[in-house]
Amino acid sequence: MAEVYADRRSRLRDQCAGAGRAAVLVSRPANVRYLAGGAPPGAALLLGPAEDLLVCPTAPNGDPAEGRLAEELRVEVLADLAADAAVAAAGRAAGTGADTLAVEEHHLTVARHRALGAAAEGLRLADLGLAVEQQRLIKDDEEIACLRIAAEISDQALGELLESILVGRTERHLALELERRLVDHGADGPAFATSVATGPNAGAAGHLPTDRRVEEGDFLSVCLGANYRGYRCALGRTFVIGTSPAAWQVELYDLVFAAQRAGREALAPGAAYSDVDRAARQILDSAGHGEGLAPSTGHGVGLEIEEEPRLSPTAMGKLDACVPVTVEPGVHLPGRGGVRIDDTLVVRPEADGGPELLTITTKELLAL
Amino acid sequence: MAEVYADRRSRLRDQCAGAGRAAVLVSRPANVRYLAGGAPPGAALLLGPAEDLLVCPTAPNGDPAEGRLAEELRVEVLADLAADAAVAAAGRAAGTGADTLAVEEHHLTVARHRALGAAAEGLRLADLGLAVEQQRLIKDDEEIACLRIAAEISDQALGELLESILVGRTERHLALELERRLVDHGADGPAFATSVATGPNAGAAGHLPTDRRVEEGDFLSVCLGANYRGYRCALGRTFVIGTSPAAWQVELYDLVFAAQRAGREALAPGAAYSDVDRAARQILDSAGHGEGLAPSTGHGVGLEIEEEPRLSPTAMGKLDACVPVTVEPGVHLPGRGGVRIDDTLVVRPEADGGPELLTITTKELLAL
Repeated sequence: MAEVYADRRSRLRDQCAGAGRAAVLVSRPANVRYLAGGAPPGAALLLGPAEDLLVCPTAPNGDPAEGRLAEELRVEVLADLAADAAVAAAGRAAGTGADTLAVEEHHLTVARHRALGAAAEGLRLADLGLAVEQQRLIKDDEEIACLRIAAEISDQALGELLESILVGRTERHLALELERRLVDHGADGPAFATSVATGPNAGAAGHLPTDRRVEEGDFLSVCLGANYRGYRCALGRTFVIGTSPAAWQVELYDLVFAAQRAGREALAPGAAYSDVDRAARQILDSAGHGEGLAPSTGHGVGLEIEEEPRLSPTAMGKLDACVPVTVEPGVHLPGRGGVRIDDTLVVRPEADGGPELLTITTKELLAL
Repeated sequence: MAEVYADRRSRLRDQCAGAGRAAVLVSRPANVRYLAGGAPPGAALLLGPAEDLLVCPTAPNGDPAEGRLAEELRVEVLADLAADAAVAAAGRAAGTGADTLAVEEHHLTVARHRALGAAAEGLRLADLGLAVEQQRLIKDDEEIACLRIAAEISDQALGELLESILVGRTERHLALELERRLVDHGADGPAFATSVATGPNAGAAGHLPTDRRVEEGDFLSVCLGANYRGYRCALGRTFVIGTSPAAWQVELYDLVFAAQRAGREALAPGAAYSDVDRAARQILDSAGHGEGLAPSTGHGVGLEIEEEPRLSPTAMGKLDACVPVTVEPGVHLPGRGGVRIDDTLVVRPEADGGPELLTITTKELLAL
């Protein structure tokens, strides 16, 4: 298990070796966790020519939410909550014989980058770019196992909510109850802010819960996900409240369902990101809902809830096996509400049965 | 009411006027909210020589959690969730006749700063620094009223929890219940991740809840706060579980209580930040707990839970009236637990009765 992290760091070091005697400084928390096994708050990871070093503002606590650090990794604790570990790590890089320090320019602020340059005396700063994010794209079995558990927990939490009385409760309360249930079932926490949207809010992407109460006849759309050992998934469903849905609700639901299925079915090793997006998008588009659609119909998940790849019309690249993604098209009609359906799946070759669906809550239109 | 935001923007513009024909681009969410009344996700605010413009990736929703935008402000909606509003705003700045664009180098990443420079064709990028943060330091009556309500809500949520059975419940569950109660009482959400720490975890700064259950004889320390209309406060208390505390618990509690009171009593207009910190710190220090103390014993609160000023040994500056701060010393004994007491207060002159305590939950050592 420990070797996993050492292997990941070796791969990154090899990739940067072409640039001469480069040290690498990783500061983005999900990247630190990927390479070190854990990411204590504010930690920065230095890959030196000779040795790797994790610098932490305070002592790591070993809590599962923070991750368990790889044992072979040298750890330096600054014992100062307010210290900038990246700046301290840059100072350590100065003595290692490296001539270049590759840093994450997409994560460091201009001000921190400057402080870091001053600390890394005699080293030239270079841009590491998205090297770690690219490495994180394809998941190993252990990572997929964590996502599978995260999805199971999400299914359980949603399933329990559906058995309770919903009419009269606010979006905020339902969201908090879902988050409590995620934790009940073993999540380290929610993977992202749980979205509960009722009536005219239903179907809006990323809707933050308000004090609106669930009413008879509403669409109710819910998007939640568990964080299990750092791995995050998403599960989104839309329901109707009351005995039977109106005709426009059935029609809209069927449309979004068809788009979401098309997106799922387009998932395959070698499929272009933009083709997966198009499969879902064109169904909504040709029904007249092209305007106002979200810029992407899905995205990668892992140590972050939105990571590479992005499934959008302009995304460049092709899917690989063992890449977990969401497929989450939705339509929101201003003033009326809408439908959103979101699954987390792992791309698998046809020979292995095609895409593996992790979030298995039914996608029938339930009337609650 | 609307004038408040226009006035704030004028003051910022005046401050930057010395730098020639400068436009200002504000991207840090709390700063955008302070100047525009609200901060839709990803919004950026451009103060041009002639006109101010808020650029948003998607249409603002007017929810209280997001804030209500000042009516006079021109809003441009990009209708693309993934667009970078700051880059778009920089592009708009290019046509205004400004020759300089001041940006927040402490907030923008190196990569975004570069994209922004490319979009702001013909403009020189300058650093706005902490100009908006400095302006946010002294709060007006409306802001203090929001903090007062946030504190009331926090007191209510904690008070209710204390009436329930605690033994056997996990830190995670207690934290989630507190957050639900905050929302019950009208909070837009928690001001920060609620900390519940039991037994050996008690008293540790910023402890994230685990699955440890409350046991007889434990110290239990809780730190929570409400977010009300964007304004965030903190309330921290430590209790003992069981009929009567052990001698070492009473002794440690009395010590931290004395330190916290000394910090509170040191709050006055004109008092140096470092003197307030010293008042609390030296009591813990002379009792032999100097090592392992947090780097600051308090900090400003407002639209962010940690903002200027910082009450620490090395902080430069003096308190003003109408600055709300926390006073939150604590001692954590590894393996045994500890005590933390946290209040939110507003600095007031002696003539007005001295510091105004917003979080009024008792600081007696309660046995629950």
